[in-house]
Amino acid sequence: MAAVEAAGSVVVPPDEATALVWADPQHPERFPELLHDGIEWVQLPYAGIGPFLPMLDDLRTWTCGKGVYARPVAEAALAMLLAGFRNIVGYARKQTWSAPVGQNLHGANVVILGGGGITDELLPLLAPFECRVTVLRRTAEPIEGATHTATLAELHEVLPDADAVILALALTPETEHVIGAAELAAMKSTAWLVNVARGGHVDTDALVDALRSGSIGGAALDVTDPQEPLPDGHPLWTLPNCLITPHVANTPEMGLVLLAERVTDNVQRYLDGGDLIGLVDIAKGY
Amino acid sequence: MAAVEAAGSVVVPPDEATALVWADPQHPERFPELLHDGIEWVQLPYAGIGPFLPMLDDLRTWTCGKGVYARPVAEAALAMLLAGFRNIVGYARKQTWSAPVGQNLHGANVVILGGGGITDELLPLLAPFECRVTVLRRTAEPIEGATHTATLAELHEVLPDADAVILALALTPETEHVIGAAELAAMKSTAWLVNVARGGHVDTDALVDALRSGSIGGAALDVTDPQEPLPDGHPLWTLPNCLITPHVANTPEMGLVLLAERVTDNVQRYLDGGDLIGLVDIAKGY
Repeated sequence: MAAVEAAGSVVVPPDEATALVWADPQHPERFPELLHDGIEWVQLPYAGIGPFLPMLDDLRTWTCGKGVYARPVAEAALAMLLAGFRNIVGYARKQTWSAPVGQNLHGANVVILGGGGITDELLPLLAPFECRVTVLRRTAEPIEGATHTATLAELHEVLPDADAVILALALTPETEHVIGAAELAAMKSTAWLVNVARGGHVDTDALVDALRSGSIGGAALDVTDPQEPLPDGHPLWTLPNCLITPHVANTPEMGLVLLAERVTDNVQRYLDGGDLIGLVDIAKGY
Repeated sequence: MAAVEAAGSVVVPPDEATALVWADPQHPERFPELLHDGIEWVQLPYAGIGPFLPMLDDLRTWTCGKGVYARPVAEAALAMLLAGFRNIVGYARKQTWSAPVGQNLHGANVVILGGGGITDELLPLLAPFECRVTVLRRTAEPIEGATHTATLAELHEVLPDADAVILALALTPETEHVIGAAELAAMKSTAWLVNVARGGHVDTDALVDALRSGSIGGAALDVTDPQEPLPDGHPLWTLPNCLITPHVANTPEMGLVLLAERVTDNVQRYLDGGDLIGLVDIAKGY
């Protein structure tokens, strides 16, 4: 409510409203009873709108949280990468003084898969490290802040020189297992893999083999396959060169603040008759 | 030798040389036998020149590695801070899926103690996170990239609002135990302390109490008091909100590359008759 009022609007009972902000992602089934013909615009929470899809109609405008959460996810990706490079993953597990281990991110060769919101937020964070950054995406259209932009077809050309490979792409049939045994074998023995996208991008068995044999430097995974929760006893939990974070690149607490900012912004735009942000394309499903 | 040749100079036996690059920090006692009147300039390794001090004279120019290592140290400070904020310290120690924990660095209130080379390198790394950064230093002279610059006398005014406190200052009698029980009590219960300076800046007993009681969020320490190695069994090793890294903000391996760059730069300047970087002030001892 504060987010709506911050834009200079007022919160009214649903039957008097012309706009509906749906803040509860857990109960989509309560949704249809509140909809009526007077509601012109609905703001949905979160970027993923799967549970709401069957209820969307073309009688009004729908917006969702897409793009809202890219900033904390990009920050998490950098935190995970630095934790790998500077061996914080290893040192956090030690209870004794140990030998110096670590590599600098400064000047490193970074490959990012995906050219969406997370990459847009990650590139400025990487800029002061003077990395050489290659972004691989659907189209080779250049991205500001990337040294080189190409399509995923170039993956095997760029992997051998990468010090870090960051997964920040959408999961589609084409990108499932985009990192498998062949890709891991192509990587440097010091390179770190960071996944803040979806678990299905990585062939987990191949990754476990690569981490065990030391054919890559390590992996920092916010998402896994099998999907959350990664079962207790899974080898990824105990490999010394692997960090698992429990899908927290964007936590609910962080997300709520950012969603509130988006709601304020969109309510302001709605009042001003401007373009709303995060428009849902019902046919595409996002 | 490659670093000298990269500047277009040649490496000759010591008795023919006019400049001496001393790459071995372990054996200062072998040093005097190589010095002769024809040597106009000596480049020492590392920033700290304690072991060499008794041998320095005013018959020639002396330079050391000061400033060379600030970049990796600043990178380590950011890595440690993010590892605390995003709970990588905690997740690295878990072998099971756990609850979401974490705070964003984006927009945080950061206090840095010290206005030297490390701070100069850290401020650009923090810039894309849009933090409010207060730098406390000997003089209140403004530093580019800091939101606010003041002297250490303001410490107690700024501590209550700090989300992160980073120690990057020199250890002097005035800055010993600059963070003690009173300062820790003034900090937020969510705030992280990062020390990449010297162990003596922090009252360790007071810190252990603050970490145990949760009166601060956590601490990430690359240096400790007792000094390295921190003894096995010390409470800092097992506190869940404490990360110890074994004085690796700059590892020997990282430093060697950076020192080589400095040597190349200084040899080039020596050949050109330019000003050398890292001049030693013998009276001050650094």
